[in-house]
Amino acid sequence: MHPEPTLQPAQISLHAPAWLAAWVNAHGDSYPDVATRMRLCIELSALNVEHETGGPFGAVVFDRATFQLISAGVNRVESCSASIAHAEIMAITAAQQQLGSFDLSATGLPECELATSCEPCAMCFGAIPWSGIRHLVCAAGDADARRIGFDEGPKLSDWNKALMQRGISVATDVCRDEAVLVLQRYATKNGLIYNGRADLKGD
Amino acid sequence: MHPEPTLQPAQISLHAPAWLAAWVNAHGDSYPDVATRMRLCIELSALNVEHETGGPFGAVVFDRATFQLISAGVNRVESCSASIAHAEIMAITAAQQQLGSFDLSATGLPECELATSCEPCAMCFGAIPWSGIRHLVCAAGDADARRIGFDEGPKLSDWNKALMQRGISVATDVCRDEAVLVLQRYATKNGLIYNGRADLKGD
Repeated sequence: MHPEPTLQPAQISLHAPAWLAAWVNAHGDSYPDVATRMRLCIELSALNVEHETGGPFGAVVFDRATFQLISAGVNRVESCSASIAHAEIMAITAAQQQLGSFDLSATGLPECELATSCEPCAMCFGAIPWSGIRHLVCAAGDADARRIGFDEGPKLSDWNKALMQRGISVATDVCRDEAVLVLQRYATKNGLIYNGRADLKGD
Repeated sequence: MHPEPTLQPAQISLHAPAWLAAWVNAHGDSYPDVATRMRLCIELSALNVEHETGGPFGAVVFDRATFQLISAGVNRVESCSASIAHAEIMAITAAQQQLGSFDLSATGLPECELATSCEPCAMCFGAIPWSGIRHLVCAAGDADARRIGFDEGPKLSDWNKALMQRGISVATDVCRDEAVLVLQRYATKNGLIYNGRADLKGD
């Protein structure tokens, strides 16, 4: 029953969908309005559903000085065989590797905002303090994701306060209704609702 | 002051240190004793310090039926410019990509144990329920990591109970003293103690 053992790969690869590079290149403008920035995340979540390249989630890292896009990510869990490949993780790590620093708060780097079409799950919440992200902006809420069957994991009930205590600003419900529409469209299309243990939801 | 904008890379790459492949190939035996399995994680943490290839943390995914190693990971945060590149994330994702599934609990896959030289931080804790890992075994504790300056993040106080509620067994303090010795050696060598915001520890 067990698969044949194979050699451990020398590197882990998390690849963006083919359409993302062109999308990023087409969005080189400055987006000073937070709702406009969020709509880019929601557009990514919708495109990921439309292209059937992953779950209904999109995230963008913005430079808070120029309001330009630094990196973008969409959910790639299934296509990359990687449960860590949430949109937020993809966007954060792309920004770090592009700027050459594991810490987006390092000297000389722009102050970074993570905008995400849905509030972070327990893992992405835990990843944010390590990333150097200084501002978090969210559209849909935990409850909206749970309503279509996604599990947000065992997260602190006052997760946004915990981030703020670490100097990270948090804004929620930005264009929430527009993000929820994409979640609903995904559920209607019978998109894969993955959970580590769908049979054992703890909360 | 801001770096020149560069194109977003088409893929995120998290590479293991060059010495790891040979180490994995040399450890094809069955390790039915949990202390022996944990000592492999601690050996990885020590080798990562000795080779100066990352922080003092090692993790291994084992097949709980054969007690053979599936994948191994060490901390690669600095060398990969990726704050997510904790040992646990490296080991889990390597196992998933090797077995071709984002869910290590998928039908046909071996039941998997994650052994780690140090209890998971907030991010790795949040990542475990999504991974399909069924058993977690830890050596050093959160407090041991904090004692040398690492920040474990805003984690549920009853994190192990939250995992157990999701059907994941948790064992702590396995060979703890041996793992703590490696943490201390790293601190003595003045290894990099990275934190997202070292100036703003919230807990």
